[in-house]
Amino acid sequence: MAGKRNPVIVPKPTIQRLPGYLTYLKEKQAEGLKNISATIIAQDLNLYHVQVRKDLALVSDGGKPKLGYLVDDLIEDLASFLGYGEDKQAVIVGVGKLGRTLLSYGGFAEYGLNICMGFDMDDRIYGLTINGKQILSIEKLGEMIKKNNIQIGIITVPAPQAQSVCDLLIKCGIKAIWNFAPVHLKTPDGIIVQNENMAASLAVLSNELRVGVKTSEDD
Amino acid sequence: MAGKRNPVIVPKPTIQRLPGYLTYLKEKQAEGLKNISATIIAQDLNLYHVQVRKDLALVSDGGKPKLGYLVDDLIEDLASFLGYGEDKQAVIVGVGKLGRTLLSYGGFAEYGLNICMGFDMDDRIYGLTINGKQILSIEKLGEMIKKNNIQIGIITVPAPQAQSVCDLLIKCGIKAIWNFAPVHLKTPDGIIVQNENMAASLAVLSNELRVGVKTSEDD
Repeated sequence: MAGKRNPVIVPKPTIQRLPGYLTYLKEKQAEGLKNISATIIAQDLNLYHVQVRKDLALVSDGGKPKLGYLVDDLIEDLASFLGYGEDKQAVIVGVGKLGRTLLSYGGFAEYGLNICMGFDMDDRIYGLTINGKQILSIEKLGEMIKKNNIQIGIITVPAPQAQSVCDLLIKCGIKAIWNFAPVHLKTPDGIIVQNENMAASLAVLSNELRVGVKTSEDD
Repeated sequence: MAGKRNPVIVPKPTIQRLPGYLTYLKEKQAEGLKNISATIIAQDLNLYHVQVRKDLALVSDGGKPKLGYLVDDLIEDLASFLGYGEDKQAVIVGVGKLGRTLLSYGGFAEYGLNICMGFDMDDRIYGLTINGKQILSIEKLGEMIKKNNIQIGIITVPAPQAQSVCDLLIKCGIKAIWNFAPVHLKTPDGIIVQNENMAASLAVLSNELRVGVKTSEDD
């Protein structure tokens, strides 16, 4: 049986690696593997084995000398730690190109995220559905967040509208914001913001292609 | 006329902010604005005005006391610095859910990225097109990269296949890799890797929702 643990404070880089372990282990499980060592996981994912051992010790007590981890138990521990069993409900605000793409993408379900509906300020798209998800007026945001027990707000509006959308989401009770707008959001204490900026990633790639050297990490 | 500059080494955080300035300025341009100050840009994007001035000074010499920047010139300088005029060609390897979504997404064009075609190991999808882009056998990768002057390889295969796909892309002459697989890629000097990991972002959000406090930044 997989070990039960109280919530512990886990370093952010560890948390960011956990979905990678889980995806990898599910593939090994599908291949029929029963046991796996931290050394093998480290090799396959190009990580340092001490790091892997340290990461996994924070979410599971299943590792045994010689035997390694039981794949099934480790998957259960990781999925439970990441909350993949309990679906989190999200709404998306801003149904432009990116918003539509995220609404259409079927891959978030395996990470326990369900994007229920989209909101926009353009009344020409109200009532449309994308991938079975309704597009509603931003005026219904507060009502829908309460009614559907929404925990996560995804922001895909243009930069100048992002802060006011963020303020509105917080006013409606949202505590976790996934921000795709290229803007730094001001939020009160207790609100979590995770920024996703693909244009920024592309800019780094293009610049390094152009200059032909690594950019400096300094600000 | 916009100022011309030689390539300079610009810090990565600055480069990551540049697309945000550009998107914002294009919206201001569409509203008919001719001049803009660093202070206003800073206010609207929630940045510190000294930071904005410093960032823009690295890509443009257009800022004038009292007048601020000419919006048209600043847009030209930013777009030229970011290489948005000269389209970069990319291929995507791994045409699963995420690969299909990226092939379908129309938003990369404005960042000067053109995803020309997709490659996969599943022969059932060879010859299909997604959003007008052909899906080909991974065996044709080298030939197509040369023929189409591809500069960027996008990796959307599962974690265990990511390293071998990365090695293959490099062998085919690719210098810049945009990696969506949740794995740390080993690459020789001179190869640029930009990692994108939405599952990791979601894990951070979910964990902070669950624990109710900020995770530690330490590794």
